[in-house]
Amino acid sequence: MISKNQLKLIRALGQKKYRKQYNQYLVQGEKNVLELLNSGLSIANIFATPAFIAAHRSALAAHQIIEADEDSLTKASTLVTNNAAIAVVDMPKQQALPTSGLILALDGVSDPGNLGTIIRVADWYGINHIVTSQDSADAYNPKTISATMGSFARVTVSQTDLTCYLPSLNLPVYGAFLAGDNIHQAKLKQDAVLLMGSESHGIRPDCEKLVTDKITIPAYGQAESLNVAMATGIILDNFKRHA
Amino acid sequence: MISKNQLKLIRALGQKKYRKQYNQYLVQGEKNVLELLNSGLSIANIFATPAFIAAHRSALAAHQIIEADEDSLTKASTLVTNNAAIAVVDMPKQQALPTSGLILALDGVSDPGNLGTIIRVADWYGINHIVTSQDSADAYNPKTISATMGSFARVTVSQTDLTCYLPSLNLPVYGAFLAGDNIHQAKLKQDAVLLMGSESHGIRPDCEKLVTDKITIPAYGQAESLNVAMATGIILDNFKRHA
Repeated sequence: MISKNQLKLIRALGQKKYRKQYNQYLVQGEKNVLELLNSGLSIANIFATPAFIAAHRSALAAHQIIEADEDSLTKASTLVTNNAAIAVVDMPKQQALPTSGLILALDGVSDPGNLGTIIRVADWYGINHIVTSQDSADAYNPKTISATMGSFARVTVSQTDLTCYLPSLNLPVYGAFLAGDNIHQAKLKQDAVLLMGSESHGIRPDCEKLVTDKITIPAYGQAESLNVAMATGIILDNFKRHA
Repeated sequence: MISKNQLKLIRALGQKKYRKQYNQYLVQGEKNVLELLNSGLSIANIFATPAFIAAHRSALAAHQIIEADEDSLTKASTLVTNNAAIAVVDMPKQQALPTSGLILALDGVSDPGNLGTIIRVADWYGINHIVTSQDSADAYNPKTISATMGSFARVTVSQTDLTCYLPSLNLPVYGAFLAGDNIHQAKLKQDAVLLMGSESHGIRPDCEKLVTDKITIPAYGQAESLNVAMATGIILDNFKRHA
């Protein structure tokens, strides 16, 4: 059973200020909790339905589990329904920012769902550390975690001041713009930064100054733009095909 | 002001059975209504706020507008907030299914948001007609229309029995699978079908039989899969780079 205090904590962790205060976050639902169990992340608590516990006995063996029925779990969850599990997870220690390889940087990507989808496609293309501006969406937002479909367990996201970080790298900075070099023809270097801008404003002037190569996904039709997560996936595919 | 009967109609058009009964659908919000006004689609009614009417007087000139305040509009809308407009649109006549060029076919893609995102990226890559299985998401679902970001006005979506349609084309059928030929290396023909499967089940056996070429987006990391809309965008980019 979920105690009153536990329920209070779970509910609080839906909000950024409490995640910061407790240094913990939520992982919810079958797929994401199973990926969590496979990761090296430190789990404080797992609340799970009898069915989930029965189905994943060996993966859960090392953990103390609190049994909860589907109704209580759904009530505690930020998901519409939750018939599996909720985990309270300790935030990992901050890692050093990446300095080589293909680095994905996000300037002001504020939608948690978009960030989660970007984490998932970054994981597909083998990028395990994303660097975002300080006003980007919180990687520990429950909507972000959900959208990663488990990739949160393999991809680190760090917030930093991009206007200090990017110049420190001494690498080419490819920025995605609606007008730039056609990525089908550009020679894309593999030791480089790929910088993506926000959904509504694109790359902002402070970061635009640091872009060495403007690139574009060529359009063949009439759509004005692509979603930032979609654009990130398509550009990563173009980088990796030359790797 | 929105009358009681108009409100009833708008609410009803949020549901598929009434869209079918009235042969009408909703277009909501600034971006999508503006794209609608630029299209040749037949508009039955437009409900709009005074601010929207003032800002778009010339685009609205040919239409009879019913003024509504933001509260009433939001109340009528399926959107969380709507400070712009709602249009009731007549469904266009059924068009003949495409028979040449690059044809995008969807087998059981059931999430309206995914379908909308696919319509948007198809529009980017110049595909103006998508063919889906009869159990795919409804292209006139308000969530689909929203996710298209205006591309609904340029891309036709037809539902049909794919197991009859695909063999009638006499074209290569590229099917997206987790195991198939690497699209970075495959020679992708431009007169062909690209068939994408559902979010949870992939391409189902009845359609799989009709696939002539299985293709895959190569993975460089650990993510198990990509969202169907993301995968569609990446594969279309690979087709078009050789066009």
